[in-house]
Amino acid sequence: MKPVNNIKIKNGMSVNELVGQMNLTGVLGAGRLGKAVNICEAMIKDRDCRVFIGLAGPLVPGGMREIIIDMIKSKWVDVVVTTGATLTHDLGEALGYRHYQGTANADDAELYKKGFDRVYESYMPNKIYEGMEDFIAKNFDNLKDKKSIKDFLWEIGRLTPKKSILKACYENKIPVFCPAISDSGIGLMIWGQIARGKGIETRAFEDLKEIIDIAWTAKKTGFIYFGGGVPKNYIQQAMQFSKKASYGVQVTMDRPEPGGSSGAELREGISWGKLSPKAKFVDLICDATIAMPIIYAALMERIR
Amino acid sequence: MKPVNNIKIKNGMSVNELVGQMNLTGVLGAGRLGKAVNICEAMIKDRDCRVFIGLAGPLVPGGMREIIIDMIKSKWVDVVVTTGATLTHDLGEALGYRHYQGTANADDAELYKKGFDRVYESYMPNKIYEGMEDFIAKNFDNLKDKKSIKDFLWEIGRLTPKKSILKACYENKIPVFCPAISDSGIGLMIWGQIARGKGIETRAFEDLKEIIDIAWTAKKTGFIYFGGGVPKNYIQQAMQFSKKASYGVQVTMDRPEPGGSSGAELREGISWGKLSPKAKFVDLICDATIAMPIIYAALMERIR
Amino acid sequence: MKPVNNIKIKNGMSVNELVGQMNLTGVLGAGRLGKAVNICEAMIKDRDCRVFIGLAGPLVPGGMREIIIDMIKSKWVDVVVTTGATLTHDLGEALGYRHYQGTANADDAELYKKGFDRVYESYMPNKIYEGMEDFIAKNFDNLKDKKSIKDFLWEIGRLTPKKSILKACYENKIPVFCPAISDSGIGLMIWGQIARGKGIETRAFEDLKEIIDIAWTAKKTGFIYFGGGVPKNYIQQAMQFSKKASYGVQVTMDRPEPGGSSGAELREGISWGKLSPKAKFVDLICDATIAMPIIYAALMERIR
Amino acid sequence: MKPVNNIKIKNGMSVNELVGQMNLTGVLGAGRLGKAVNICEAMIKDRDCRVFIGLAGPLVPGGMREIIIDMIKSKWVDVVVTTGATLTHDLGEALGYRHYQGTANADDAELYKKGFDRVYESYMPNKIYEGMEDFIAKNFDNLKDKKSIKDFLWEIGRLTPKKSILKACYENKIPVFCPAISDSGIGLMIWGQIARGKGIETRAFEDLKEIIDIAWTAKKTGFIYFGGGVPKNYIQQAMQFSKKASYGVQVTMDRPEPGGSSGAELREGISWGKLSPKAKFVDLICDATIAMPIIYAALMERIR
Repeated sequence: MKPVNNIKIKNGMSVNELVGQMNLTGVLGAGRLGKAVNICEAMIKDRDCRVFIGLAGPLVPGGMREIIIDMIKSKWVDVVVTTGATLTHDLGEALGYRHYQGTANADDAELYKKGFDRVYESYMPNKIYEGMEDFIAKNFDNLKDKKSIKDFLWEIGRLTPKKSILKACYENKIPVFCPAISDSGIGLMIWGQIARGKGIETRAFEDLKEIIDIAWTAKKTGFIYFGGGVPKNYIQQAMQFSKKASYGVQVTMDRPEPGGSSGAELREGISWGKLSPKAKFVDLICDATIAMPIIYAALMERIR
Repeated sequence: MKPVNNIKIKNGMSVNELVGQMNLTGVLGAGRLGKAVNICEAMIKDRDCRVFIGLAGPLVPGGMREIIIDMIKSKWVDVVVTTGATLTHDLGEALGYRHYQGTANADDAELYKKGFDRVYESYMPNKIYEGMEDFIAKNFDNLKDKKSIKDFLWEIGRLTPKKSILKACYENKIPVFCPAISDSGIGLMIWGQIARGKGIETRAFEDLKEIIDIAWTAKKTGFIYFGGGVPKNYIQQAMQFSKKASYGVQVTMDRPEPGGSSGAELREGISWGKLSPKAKFVDLICDATIAMPIIYAALMERIR
Repeated sequence: MKPVNNIKIKNGMSVNELVGQMNLTGVLGAGRLGKAVNICEAMIKDRDCRVFIGLAGPLVPGGMREIIIDMIKSKWVDVVVTTGATLTHDLGEALGYRHYQGTANADDAELYKKGFDRVYESYMPNKIYEGMEDFIAKNFDNLKDKKSIKDFLWEIGRLTPKKSILKACYENKIPVFCPAISDSGIGLMIWGQIARGKGIETRAFEDLKEIIDIAWTAKKTGFIYFGGGVPKNYIQQAMQFSKKASYGVQVTMDRPEPGGSSGAELREGISWGKLSPKAKFVDLICDATIAMPIIYAALMERIR
Repeated sequence: MKPVNNIKIKNGMSVNELVGQMNLTGVLGAGRLGKAVNICEAMIKDRDCRVFIGLAGPLVPGGMREIIIDMIKSKWVDVVVTTGATLTHDLGEALGYRHYQGTANADDAELYKKGFDRVYESYMPNKIYEGMEDFIAKNFDNLKDKKSIKDFLWEIGRLTPKKSILKACYENKIPVFCPAISDSGIGLMIWGQIARGKGIETRAFEDLKEIIDIAWTAKKTGFIYFGGGVPKNYIQQAMQFSKKASYGVQVTMDRPEPGGSSGAELREGISWGKLSPKAKFVDLICDATIAMPIIYAALMERIR
């Protein structure tokens, strides 16, 4: 058995040096954060491994957008699965809108009058919908024939004026999946066109073949989940019906006891055949906006 | 200000009598459970109100299936939104499979060998996929032309041999939405057909018009969320783009601070225009498998 | 393996009937609540077993006071361990004050001006301190020579004008322990006397012998924890240094991963020798104000 | 309103540079971590402010011991309040024992046989009790006349052979309070002496005067809580009965809705008069073993 080492702090130490110290504790939050960076490093450096990243929760309203774009541009990940909300927030910022610093103890009726939609303590200006409506209306003819959600999203990425998560995916040919895209602001803008009598070809089940093929044809697979929800589960089931993952990192604040997929411990996936019993994996119980910058900064020191 | 009343227990008291006592405390978990039943009662009895129920998490592996079916048959709810996992578990039981009592401290590699997929401490037999594959293969011709996910699900309900959530929806003409249906065992069975070269017409955005129209044409709307995820968010956005809800009950174990939709307090919805500032609403922090039977038993005493 | 049974609700069913249905699911929150009642019943009915109850959190501001008093009067428990806050709230109510129904979204500066101390959404009138100060000042001569905290608390119970938790303990000769009594409103009232130059003999370590002797001389031991904190840990360590518990029930909302005692799973106690590996035990993740009335109502049907 | 800035990561950036980036987001976990460091810096640098630190949870088994000792030696804090468990773990390490890296999925009955006590995934060797028993037995004559728990703890610090939290407190004349000291391994070792017929003078209420005087005679007060429990509450009540705090930082994983003190949001303290309505304060929802090293490393860059 290895002893728990006491963390030693040096003045001006880098993020990666701190993570190295955390790793030496080997236990609890600090030890798990250290282990998470090790496993991310291993799966990204493993040339045989395809890395699937699942992104859920308020990552863009929480300031994680640049990091996500950088991870995609660096080709650290081979597949992105995310929520419609993340893509909506991302498109909003790409169209020139910002999110704002607010408070959780807000007067929500007052915010409504002022036109701000609250995401805990981050505020989204409601007029973001106007910009998105224009964008979708103007580009609907380019979108309406896309048979898969992935192609629909890549096309949005192609059309997006400034840098964005979807543009980074499109330009780097990183497949991006969002099974519940209709459950989002982007979905609502498409509904706005449908309500005007227009049609759109995008199929609900079309992407399944591609994500499962990517996993199936990989020598190894690994995943990194920031948040749970559909992104986690969609990657999990792709693993189940192809190759058990060899690496896994999960960052979540949900708890396992209620039994939902979002809070489920990764080892549960072994019973399903989603995760190899020999896999390196860790569950990190941490706010994603704290964990993601630390993990990314430490990885940058190790990989670049 | 009303005082907190101390709960008094009588021998043999009914569930509704207990909930009435809890309501008199007016605070914390007990008070909120009391309030949740009151609000559910009010929205169900309000003839002008259309009730949307969101169902996420392991409700079927947790033994809630009969209650859900009964709520649909009683027409207490006008719209059901759920996850693909719930519909998969439900179809599995309708095809004659059961879930089993297990433990969270299981040897997952052993479970894998024995063919059991773990959902915290509930086990699903892996052979459920064989039964589902047969069912989907046999009925694919009936499913492949359904343009909306709702019609696809109603058709599954029609074809299901025994009673089920989907059958209850179909028979009672309760619209059932599942935006992320491809993210589920049912989705994987459809992929199995696609992988054999077959095609399916189901559209990703098709249902949006129907759910928003239902909310738009209602005099009032109300919602009950057991768990968060896509079901909650999909109902929330339908409210946002039609009528602010007049009633709202949320049962969740997720916490609000990380900022995700699942854990968000309902009052946040006021800023978005999803919930009326005058609405009656409550956030109940409780395991759904504890709250749902209590709420349902109390409502039965009050409504029937 | 036993199948998960679907809960069936009957109109007007009693709380115990509902708990019986929950028990048949065998899993997740409902199954654990069913199991918790079974284990409480077993340990209370087991004539060889001494039952230790740990009480932490806002049980009195949450309306649980009558239930706690009834459990003590019924002699279902042999030892009570609690927090100073619970005894302060209890004494406040015994002196004629009430707690009030408030909101978590309060203006705390306004509440301060109005003289209400907020406990999430329950309000305690600040003038409770005046009543307690009078009570302690008037009775200080009776208290100042008590060498153990238990004797100090029994004396408060004896002197308390109306029914209270401490009075019930005193009258039924149920030992009541509160290691951190100085960390409470009662502690502050004693400080008020010390600040006036008075002395008090109560010893910090004096009670340890009594609680460990009670556990040591029992044929079997069992515990019921509502909340964690010092009450749980103090009972745990009494078990560790005497007899491993044969029965254990824990009700908590704290999570295990941060590693604190309050959220620790009971099975962890097996490694310490606090809990027998053969013990019947369950961890119930639930708000205490929801679980306690249900458990008590079900037990009343079974035991009385 | 300030916009949420997207975090930008630079290769090799220091921990403080990362925290600075997090602070610019202004929201959610990252923004709160940034704010927590700012407030700690402000209260430590404010010459008029006395800083109270509350330490609860498995900080020593989690590898935080050196950081805590360094914070005390640096005189960043004026008062330490902690749990008996922390002091027990600390004394164990000072006597030459270590904690070990384990797993939460352990076989606890096996660990018991091997003599390891599990703290989630950190293991404490059970023989630590032998070393402590010797230490306490050998030094009991020095301890038995200490009338206050603080003096009792300082004496342990003085007698401790190697560096420790208590030794650092003793040597730097930092008052250290532990109201529930009897609820700990150290308490049990004292019980061992009492069981042999010895007596000890330590009083339960004795320290209240000192901690309240320290707060009362300060020009300003501030607090930093890692974990909740008695340490938090004991500092809170000292503020209530002296000077409202001007600065406050809380790091916890407990949630507020159940209403317990550990999870209570700091703003609740305004209603009690524990926290000034003008105070700078923040609630950080994070594992302490992740937050403490980051906060300490960032502060070191700013203060030294």
